[in-house]
Amino acid sequence: MGVEIERRFLVTDASWRSEALHRQHLVQGYLAREDGVSVRLRLNGAGARLTIKGPGGVCRPEFEYAIPPAEAKEMIATLCAGRRLGKTRHIVPHGGLRWEVDVFEGALAGLVIAEVELPAPDHPVALPPWVGREITGDRRYANAALASAEAPPQG
Amino acid sequence: MGVEIERRFLVTDASWRSEALHRQHLVQGYLAREDGVSVRLRLNGAGARLTIKGPGGVCRPEFEYAIPPAEAKEMIATLCAGRRLGKTRHIVPHGGLRWEVDVFEGALAGLVIAEVELPAPDHPVALPPWVGREITGDRRYANAALASAEAPPQG
Repeated sequence: MGVEIERRFLVTDASWRSEALHRQHLVQGYLAREDGVSVRLRLNGAGARLTIKGPGGVCRPEFEYAIPPAEAKEMIATLCAGRRLGKTRHIVPHGGLRWEVDVFEGALAGLVIAEVELPAPDHPVALPPWVGREITGDRRYANAALASAEAPPQG
Repeated sequence: MGVEIERRFLVTDASWRSEALHRQHLVQGYLAREDGVSVRLRLNGAGARLTIKGPGGVCRPEFEYAIPPAEAKEMIATLCAGRRLGKTRHIVPHGGLRWEVDVFEGALAGLVIAEVELPAPDHPVALPPWVGREITGDRRYANAALASAEAPPQG
């Protein structure tokens, strides 16, 4: 089984920007979400992927397939109404790990989330000074939920 | 866009069996269903496909991708609880068209549905004598709904 092991945090200030290596604009659409399973389309300019994620907190089952970008684009436009989001992902190395800092746009403007993928759930993580509260497993902050949100979650 | 153009009917007797050419056992699991969009996995013994269908009646948008059977099997087992079905599909030629007669099993035993794919929505269809009521667009009879049903729909 594919497993994604990931911890997620709210970002509290912009000091990460001076350490960012590169960035990429992502458009995501959710075809359907049910019982903690989500089926996501992601376009990154270079290609497209269809990703299935299962329920979980730090560890989630994940299966991913490359698909033709034109078909992903069409499905996002026609089958994901009310279940789409855009964000810019910045890669920021810290403490030997590769952090991804996602700056959301549109209705989610103002929301910035940092994610770090780990080789094991208990892998030590040196928290960067620009992260705040951990939101791993908080379903309000899952991208699948944010895609339908009218504003960033509060509290 | 991929479009599936299909009409569906309840099957009223077993006289189609003498005309059936071959059959195949299918196992299907639905990863998620939302707003008329369904994401289906299908295993047929020879291979596996992931199929996205959109809302519709006779015509439905459809996108399909081959995926590794081992991954489909694992996802059906672990991510599709309560959203699975098994059936045997028989191919029955009639009136120049290729009919598919699905004999459902398990909780759906007794239900037999005939489907025919058409080149155009208004393509003439010579109805075989063994079909009864048309159920095209009747969402209770959609496989995505049947996968969660505890018995065949009534009425």
